[in-house]
Amino acid sequence: MQKVIFDTDPGVDDAMALLFLARHPEVDLVGVTTTFGNAPIDITTNNALFLRREFGFSAPIAKGSGDKYQPGRETHPFPTFIHGDDGLGNIGVPDMSGEPLDPRPAHEFLIDMIKAHPGEITIVAVGRMTNLANALRVAPEITRLVKQVVIMGGAVDVPGNVNPAAEANIHGDPEAADAVMVADWPVVLVGLDVTLKTVMTRSELAALAARGGPAVELLDRLSQFYIDFYSGQVEDAMVVHDTCACVYVVAPELFVTRPGAIRVLTTGIGEGKTMQKPDGMRFGPSAWDGLPSQLACMDVKAAELLALVEETLVRQ
Amino acid sequence: MQKVIFDTDPGVDDAMALLFLARHPEVDLVGVTTTFGNAPIDITTNNALFLRREFGFSAPIAKGSGDKYQPGRETHPFPTFIHGDDGLGNIGVPDMSGEPLDPRPAHEFLIDMIKAHPGEITIVAVGRMTNLANALRVAPEITRLVKQVVIMGGAVDVPGNVNPAAEANIHGDPEAADAVMVADWPVVLVGLDVTLKTVMTRSELAALAARGGPAVELLDRLSQFYIDFYSGQVEDAMVVHDTCACVYVVAPELFVTRPGAIRVLTTGIGEGKTMQKPDGMRFGPSAWDGLPSQLACMDVKAAELLALVEETLVRQ
Ligand SMILES: [Ca+2]
Ligand SMILES: [Ca+2]
Repeated sequence: MQKVIFDTDPGVDDAMALLFLARHPEVDLVGVTTTFGNAPIDITTNNALFLRREFGFSAPIAKGSGDKYQPGRETHPFPTFIHGDDGLGNIGVPDMSGEPLDPRPAHEFLIDMIKAHPGEITIVAVGRMTNLANALRVAPEITRLVKQVVIMGGAVDVPGNVNPAAEANIHGDPEAADAVMVADWPVVLVGLDVTLKTVMTRSELAALAARGGPAVELLDRLSQFYIDFYSGQVEDAMVVHDTCACVYVVAPELFVTRPGAIRVLTTGIGEGKTMQKPDGMRFGPSAWDGLPSQLACMDVKAAELLALVEETLVRQ
Repeated sequence: MQKVIFDTDPGVDDAMALLFLARHPEVDLVGVTTTFGNAPIDITTNNALFLRREFGFSAPIAKGSGDKYQPGRETHPFPTFIHGDDGLGNIGVPDMSGEPLDPRPAHEFLIDMIKAHPGEITIVAVGRMTNLANALRVAPEITRLVKQVVIMGGAVDVPGNVNPAAEANIHGDPEAADAVMVADWPVVLVGLDVTLKTVMTRSELAALAARGGPAVELLDRLSQFYIDFYSGQVEDAMVVHDTCACVYVVAPELFVTRPGAIRVLTTGIGEGKTMQKPDGMRFGPSAWDGLPSQLACMDVKAAELLALVEETLVRQ
């Protein structure tokens, strides 16, 4: 069993990822921390509480920061055109304020859990990197205690999605992301280089819903708005971005990775771009020198990944 | 016949590119403009004069600027470890100051030639973009009069070579390169995405020298130092970067191109990075919006390209 803390901004594709973690037999979901991104922090936290009830898992949920890592950082509008005003495809999420929330802010929850289980915790981060960076700032010693940090984010050798340079999770808090990449803990970047290859069609999802029970039916319902958005890019289907990071935890052999230091651009027109210095390539001096080697996912066995996702989502 | 002006900083791979242009039957080499990069401007200009004599072509040579496009821009050391102290593999290039040089600075030569042959001139630029940007600043109307601008430079969806972000020609004067990319003339970027796939072995070059006469013998001799440098990256061979741009002029069908606006980062750790906004992909607002669509080369039929290069270099 792998102890996983899921740092998330639900978010439609976050919801699928969360159900994957909740249902995979090798994953022990020991906590969920919320971050802003797909929607404001109050909404993503409410959504996490809602999904916990609907998906029937018991992990504590800790609310994250609603502010970027660097105070005063310019903000961007929330992508309501992708995830809906409620972050979950405008299905009408109920108010969950009666549900129990962990009393600690997300970064403190992360620190406490990491210290309580040294060497055991995998963080799967599929929103902005704010909570992780805040945890590093308060307790830099956690880098030695985390098993690995698996991130859905970035676009290494492909264009971004927010703009030609940047992927949304990284662009949303680039200083936080850079702090996470350069820290001396094992980071795996599962970015657009691979996630754009993992596409589940509307009919495949509907077929899953028919045999996966109420949780997958909910997933199917809340994904329709998101599929409509993606219909401009892929054929009546959804890109399962966040779930890819979860699959890496249990099936890393499905991915081709490239080792090397990773930085995030924090200024100029390329702000939010992730760039790697591949190990073994020769360069002049650069801002990547001397930093820890991280793994960037460059390719994926998409059909096998999707088969694993489908098999896992319908487990009861 | 295609009228070509070759903007170059010879430079070992520049020398092969120049011989390719001089010997290709469909190319009318109407001028050579020099730029700094592989070596200082006085050395690259002397090298161009030397290569004209040795290769036996007659096009005028105009000396370019030795300063970057943006006054006061920080300078970098010259890559003597790749191209030698003399820019041509330390073969001992003679002083060519007796040879005739066009009296005009390179950017004026470019402007005059473009205006004298409206719609006919292809610029092949394989050094820093300084001369081209200076020409645009003085005479922006030339954008309507140039047939196309084919550039060896940039690294779009691959790492750079100077550092993980940037390719050398672009990194050497990023503001100049950005001005060239965003101008409303047809630009084709032949960058590391394709040039790193075009590798000629030391023995292949030696075989060419045995049947290509003194010019190819010289090419073989001056390339040995460069091949030694590249032996850390490719197996006893040279990457024929600059020649790729020349091949595009006569055989564009060997390349896979992607259309879209191209920008160059001019600040931060990613300075000199080329980024494209591929046409047809959906993004939020960005600094690429409303700019002309240019072509980035993404793939190449390397074996066919090398066959064409070899066939052309040995023509007498
Ligand atoms: Ca997410
Ligand atoms: Ca050159």
